[in-house]
Amino acid sequence: MKQRLLTPGPTPVPEETLLELAKPMIFHRTAEFRAMLGEVLADLQQIFVTKNPVIPLTSSGSGALEAALANSVPAGGKVICLIAGRFGERWKNIAKAFGIEAVVVTVPYGQAVQPSQLEAALAEHSDAIAVCSTLSETSTGVGHDVAVFGKIVAKTAAILIVDAVSGLGAMECRTDEWNIDINCTGSQKALMMPPGLAFLSVSDKAWQTIEKNPNPRTFYFDLKKAKKNLETNDTPYTPAHTLIRAMRVSTKKILAEGMEAIWARQSKYAAAARAGLQALGLELFAAQPNTALTVVKMPANIDSTVLLTKLEKQFGLKLANGQDTLKGKIIRLAHMGYIDQFDILAAISGVEIALAEMGHPVELGKGLTAAQRVFAAR
Amino acid sequence: MKQRLLTPGPTPVPEETLLELAKPMIFHRTAEFRAMLGEVLADLQQIFVTKNPVIPLTSSGSGALEAALANSVPAGGKVICLIAGRFGERWKNIAKAFGIEAVVVTVPYGQAVQPSQLEAALAEHSDAIAVCSTLSETSTGVGHDVAVFGKIVAKTAAILIVDAVSGLGAMECRTDEWNIDINCTGSQKALMMPPGLAFLSVSDKAWQTIEKNPNPRTFYFDLKKAKKNLETNDTPYTPAHTLIRAMRVSTKKILAEGMEAIWARQSKYAAAARAGLQALGLELFAAQPNTALTVVKMPANIDSTVLLTKLEKQFGLKLANGQDTLKGKIIRLAHMGYIDQFDILAAISGVEIALAEMGHPVELGKGLTAAQRVFAAR
Repeated sequence: MKQRLLTPGPTPVPEETLLELAKPMIFHRTAEFRAMLGEVLADLQQIFVTKNPVIPLTSSGSGALEAALANSVPAGGKVICLIAGRFGERWKNIAKAFGIEAVVVTVPYGQAVQPSQLEAALAEHSDAIAVCSTLSETSTGVGHDVAVFGKIVAKTAAILIVDAVSGLGAMECRTDEWNIDINCTGSQKALMMPPGLAFLSVSDKAWQTIEKNPNPRTFYFDLKKAKKNLETNDTPYTPAHTLIRAMRVSTKKILAEGMEAIWARQSKYAAAARAGLQALGLELFAAQPNTALTVVKMPANIDSTVLLTKLEKQFGLKLANGQDTLKGKIIRLAHMGYIDQFDILAAISGVEIALAEMGHPVELGKGLTAAQRVFAAR
Repeated sequence: MKQRLLTPGPTPVPEETLLELAKPMIFHRTAEFRAMLGEVLADLQQIFVTKNPVIPLTSSGSGALEAALANSVPAGGKVICLIAGRFGERWKNIAKAFGIEAVVVTVPYGQAVQPSQLEAALAEHSDAIAVCSTLSETSTGVGHDVAVFGKIVAKTAAILIVDAVSGLGAMECRTDEWNIDINCTGSQKALMMPPGLAFLSVSDKAWQTIEKNPNPRTFYFDLKKAKKNLETNDTPYTPAHTLIRAMRVSTKKILAEGMEAIWARQSKYAAAARAGLQALGLELFAAQPNTALTVVKMPANIDSTVLLTKLEKQFGLKLANGQDTLKGKIIRLAHMGYIDQFDILAAISGVEIALAEMGHPVELGKGLTAAQRVFAAR
C-alpha cells in the first residue's frame, strides 16, 4: 500500500535528497565539505530571513533549545516562558534542568499566549534575561504572533528565543524583522530532511547576552565555540556531514520556490485543510491556528486513536494523535515540507470515509469539495 | 578516480547500509520503530560486550562524553583525566565547562598512560568521582590498557568512563569484564555508519553515581530520562531514526562476523600496516599502538601535508594528517570498520610510490611484501 506521511515531523523527504544520503562517505575536514557547509548555512540564512549567523548542531531540535538557554542564561537567572502546549512546557523543563528561574505565562491548550500577557510579565519581571516562546505549538496547532512578541521584547534588555522547530519554513517567520534573537529549528519538519540536525540563528543582542553569561554549563552546545569554528566553515565536533550534504538538495528546492511563495502556499494549504475538516463537522482545536498543521477535535463518540489506526491500516495515511491528555481526543494533520495539495486531499478523503464507517454522519465528498474550493481560489 | 577513505572517522559505510538511508521517511512513535530501536540496541550490547543498557543519543561522540560527565559529576566534584592526546584533553575541557575539578595525568603525545600513574592518582585523590580515559587515542594511535585500568578503578568508589569512540569495534573491548562503567562511542568509526549517532553503556555502579548527583546540568543528554524512555524502546526527543534504521544493517554485518573474529582481524590489520610502513623506514608514532589505526612519523625531509595531498590527488587515497602541533609531522592510516586488507595494501602502495617520488629512498614493493607476509600468516 502506498504510504503517506502527514505527521508534524518527521515529514516526507524529497527523493533527490534521499538519494544523496546513499552516496559514499567523504571526509569532513576538507575544503569541499567546508564549502558545502557554508553553502547550506547561507541558504538557511535566506530561509530564516536573517543576516545573523546560522549555527548547525548535530542533534534534534531540543538540542538547539538547550543550546539557546544554557548559553544565554546562568543558573539563578530568570526567563519568561510563554506556554501554550507541550513544547512551551519544554522551555520550562530546560530552565529547571539548568537551575534557571522560569516565570511561566500559560494559556489552556488550544489557546495562544496574548501579547498583553507578555507585556504584563515583562513589566513585573524587568530582570528577565530571556523570553522563550514557540512559533508553531505543534501539540495543539496554535501559532503565536511572534512578530508582535518581538516588538515588545525588543524594547527591553531581554532577548527573544523562539522554538520554531515545526514552524520555520511552514509559516511566515522573518527572524530579523521580527526581532527574534535566537531562532531554533530542526531538520525534520518543513526543511524536508530526516531528523539529526538542528539550527539556530543568533542576533548581536543575543551574542552580547551570551558573552555576559559567566557560567554557560555546556560543552557540546557551546555557541561561542561554534561561532568561532564557523569563521572557517568548520564545526567543533564531527557533524552529521552526510545529512548536511543531503540538506543542500532540500534547501535549494526550498529557495527555488522562495519563502514568500512558500508562506502563501502554506496559508492556502492550512485554509483548505481547515475548510475540508470543518465541512465534515469537525471543530478546530486551535483558537489561533498556524499554517504548519491543522488540529481538529473528535466528535464525542469518536476515539481519535481508532480513527488514526483505520487511516493507517486501510489507506496508508499516517496522521498524528494528540499527546498526553489529548491522546484520543484530537487528530493532527501536518501539511508542511514535501507535501502538496493532493496529499492533503488524500488525508481529507481518508478521514471522510473512516468517519462514515465509524458511524459518524458524513456526506461523502463534502470535505473534499470544501478543500478543493480553497485550492481553486485565486 | 576511485576513492578510498582511510581516515579515523568518518570511515566507509557498506553499500547496503547507504541504500537503507535512501528509503522513504517513516514516523518514529510506532511499534515498528520501537522494535527496530530495541533490536539495534540489543545488537550494540553484543558489540559492547555488556549486559548493561546501551543508550542512544542523536549527537556526535562528544555528546556521549558530555552526557557521561554531566550526569555523573556535580559542579565542584573531582575527576581524574588520563591524557595521552587530543581526545584525552577533551575530557579535561568538558570538566572545565561543567565546573568539575579535573586532576590530569598526562604523558607526552605518542605515549600511553601507565596503570601505575592511575594508581598513584587514585591514591592521592580518593575523593575522585570518576576516572576518564580513552580506549584508542585517535590523535596519536595509542591504545590504553583499559582492562587493567578497570581492575584498578573497580577497587575504589570512582567510576571508569571510557571514550571508546574510535576504539569500540576496532580493538578488543569487553565492557563488563573490564569494569567500564560508562563506555562511549560514536556511529562513524568502527560501527560502519555515517556520523550522527552516539551510544553509551551505563553500569549499575554508574547509575548509582548518577542518581546521587544533585545537579546534572543537562536536559538533552539526561541519562535518567533516556533510561526511563528505553523501557518502551523510546527516546525522549526525536532521534535520528533513519540512521537507526540503517544502523541495523551495519550491526548485523558486524555480528555476523562476531566480535572475537573482528578483534583478531583488526590485530592482523594493524600488524600488517605497521610491518608495511616500517619496512619503508617509517617509525611508529605510538609507543603502545592500538588496532584501529596506525600512525607513523615522517622522515625529517618529508612534510606529511604534501604526502597526503599527493595520495589524495594521484590515487584517491584519503588518510589523515596530524592535528594541531602534529600537523605535517605524522600520517594516520585508519583500518577499522568497512575496510579490508586490500584497502590497506592500497594505502601502503600509495605511500611507497609517493615517498619515492618525493625523493625518499624506498625499495618499491618492500612495504607491500612486509604487509602481505602478515596477511598470509596463519
